[in-house]
Amino acid sequence: MASWLSIPVDSHFSLANIPFGIISTSKSSVPVPAIAIGNYALDLSTFTKAQGFSSLPSFHPHLDVFHQSTLNGFAALGRPVHRQVREYLQAVFKNDTPFPSVLKENAALQREALIPLSEVTNHLPLQIGDYTDFYAGRNHAFNLGCLFRGPENALQPNYNSLPVGYHGRASSVVVSGTPIVRPTGQILTNPTATPKIPVFMPCKRLDIELELAAFVSTGNKLGQPVPIDKAEDHIFGLVLMNDWSARDIQAWEYVPLGPFNAKNFATTITPWVVLIDALEPFRAQGLEPGNRDSLLPYLREKRPDNVFDIKLEFELRHSKEDAPTRISTTNATNLLYSFSQMLAHHTITGCNLRTGDLLGSGTISGKEPKTQGSLLEHTNGGKEPITLSDGTTKRIFLEDGDEVILRAVAGDVDGAYVGFGECIGSIAPAVNFTF
Amino acid sequence: MASWLSIPVDSHFSLANIPFGIISTSKSSVPVPAIAIGNYALDLSTFTKAQGFSSLPSFHPHLDVFHQSTLNGFAALGRPVHRQVREYLQAVFKNDTPFPSVLKENAALQREALIPLSEVTNHLPLQIGDYTDFYAGRNHAFNLGCLFRGPENALQPNYNSLPVGYHGRASSVVVSGTPIVRPTGQILTNPTATPKIPVFMPCKRLDIELELAAFVSTGNKLGQPVPIDKAEDHIFGLVLMNDWSARDIQAWEYVPLGPFNAKNFATTITPWVVLIDALEPFRAQGLEPGNRDSLLPYLREKRPDNVFDIKLEFELRHSKEDAPTRISTTNATNLLYSFSQMLAHHTITGCNLRTGDLLGSGTISGKEPKTQGSLLEHTNGGKEPITLSDGTTKRIFLEDGDEVILRAVAGDVDGAYVGFGECIGSIAPAVNFTF
Repeated sequence: MASWLSIPVDSHFSLANIPFGIISTSKSSVPVPAIAIGNYALDLSTFTKAQGFSSLPSFHPHLDVFHQSTLNGFAALGRPVHRQVREYLQAVFKNDTPFPSVLKENAALQREALIPLSEVTNHLPLQIGDYTDFYAGRNHAFNLGCLFRGPENALQPNYNSLPVGYHGRASSVVVSGTPIVRPTGQILTNPTATPKIPVFMPCKRLDIELELAAFVSTGNKLGQPVPIDKAEDHIFGLVLMNDWSARDIQAWEYVPLGPFNAKNFATTITPWVVLIDALEPFRAQGLEPGNRDSLLPYLREKRPDNVFDIKLEFELRHSKEDAPTRISTTNATNLLYSFSQMLAHHTITGCNLRTGDLLGSGTISGKEPKTQGSLLEHTNGGKEPITLSDGTTKRIFLEDGDEVILRAVAGDVDGAYVGFGECIGSIAPAVNFTF
Repeated sequence: MASWLSIPVDSHFSLANIPFGIISTSKSSVPVPAIAIGNYALDLSTFTKAQGFSSLPSFHPHLDVFHQSTLNGFAALGRPVHRQVREYLQAVFKNDTPFPSVLKENAALQREALIPLSEVTNHLPLQIGDYTDFYAGRNHAFNLGCLFRGPENALQPNYNSLPVGYHGRASSVVVSGTPIVRPTGQILTNPTATPKIPVFMPCKRLDIELELAAFVSTGNKLGQPVPIDKAEDHIFGLVLMNDWSARDIQAWEYVPLGPFNAKNFATTITPWVVLIDALEPFRAQGLEPGNRDSLLPYLREKRPDNVFDIKLEFELRHSKEDAPTRISTTNATNLLYSFSQMLAHHTITGCNLRTGDLLGSGTISGKEPKTQGSLLEHTNGGKEPITLSDGTTKRIFLEDGDEVILRAVAGDVDGAYVGFGECIGSIAPAVNFTF
């Protein structure tokens, strides 16, 4: 598909994508819905006011969702509506658009509604109700298990039977670009001493976790589980996510109820939600087929290819003067469970999901060197430093001023990439406490 | 303090209390703020419209909060405003009110705004952002630890250093009276067999957890921890809570990231929020003083009496024909940490709290027989059945149709009780799955 709009061939936001987000600008500080296309955002509020959806009459009862400050209203309309709107916007932008008067030949509306991405401020795309983080990257779970318990007992007995997950902190999910203040907390600096006396200090083992995450579109009622073959219809789309982790705080606090302060200080997501329909051409099989017989029926999918072939990478930049160092490249096929399986498992007890809920995949790692989604794995538990691209600077965990850049993209044809853009965060110094 | 309104001497909602909630009625289905007083609710929307706050001019800029469908707006005004409004409403209701024309001598407004509690439908008092559950009842943690690991290793090494907590599920917090559908999930029916193969079945070990919980009034910004001596000013008030737990689902799923499906299907709270100011006369010392030297400074409170003397009980009724059986009586002084300590710990990493966030205390148990806040402890891990009041019916865990009633009240002077009312839930049969 070619567009009348100039879209760089390597853009994450090709005509095949059409991801949705929330933006504001220096001229208009009120956050409004938008799509990303090439190097531009299309302001959907302005587009709607200018009769941009005049040729999509089925959507006319819902136009108000594009004058809201989050995408919750749009997401709640359900997947058939998302599909119609995405396909309509693709038609508006394609070379031989059937609706040339809407935008292609409307220079005034182009000037008003097409805003260079460089001039846009991104906001959280949806108001998040609950945030749940899973642990579906089996290589990551195995790698961490090896560090803690050795390879024989690396995976817990439940791991291959259910998507392990835990409730995360919704309030501190932030959009790419938000600075991350180094957390302070209780740390056991000498784990072998008796008695165990923790120290109050800034985190020294600040790590990243490379994940994908799904936003819930339509929810379910309390007491009414979502069947596995309907689960994907409850997903609005995916974002790329960095679930920052304080490994030293985690080690002391996490028994017996799981991570808490080690994770609650920040989670960064990309601003543009890539719809499931845009990822449809990239279906692939995960670490095991989604319909394998060993799964209990409530988790068994009809198709084996229940995850997506999405290339993932993360880079670290330790100073503005130096080029970023590519630390890792991996792929979202390194998941044992799909988002549909996570969602079905989440609701099997009757737990209700709501529009805007966020489900994280867990850290995605490969098996080979330089494919791990966290520094803890990369450095073999903090024992083997990484040398950065300047040839001298070493890193085990993150230091103040470090910038972390995650990227994710599906497809390998120029002009047809379906990407997530960048998920960026830099580390600010810890709070200075006085007691 | 005596009132011109007839208030039963044993009422939880004496003039010393004035708890806030959200109600609707068969005549007016729009949820509105209210207080409970004796056997009545005072509809604050109607009261406001009828110039009920005419003699509290400092509150006039905020009157709109009493026309909202949650208490978030009121809670966000902060503790000094809550105190003024509560004291004003006490003044309106007391025998020698300085404002007799407001309500005492206004029969028309009494008829309109004073609604018998029996005619009121209660709603969740606040829209909950995040829900966090702590584990601050040390006797409960010790009892569970004994069941799992024996008395020598019952408490984990971190327990006396920090308030252990985990993120819970906000979407499934429901108000007292909501039926609880028995959850279904993965259960390891034969834990000693190899390999470990779970069964998909309804929970057989459905339990209660007797807790108190605090609602957050004003939040904090991301990256800006709340100091311990300011923490209580961020608390709106307390409710009584039943954190329903599926022990068999929990046993299989909870390693290594903590409870998930075992807890996410429902949490029941009382509808009336008891303000911290109402509990002020009942300050008491918890299991250890709040200012003990062994605490890190960020958790050390100025005063030793940092918890509240609140009597707690739970009853079980297995049929409508039989009287409820009192299972347990205990006291909120069985906490090792206060809500201020939980809140300070929660934010020490920079995690932001928001108005409406809910912090659970964890299960509160005593040390003596019949003082435990869960059936798992009561029945010694499911081994010793309880005989109910009919003399023949036995219970280990909850069966379909069982009704659980929690109660909490501070004070021992007739006419001056500060109580929470009842936190009720009855068990509905599991969903009937077909695959």
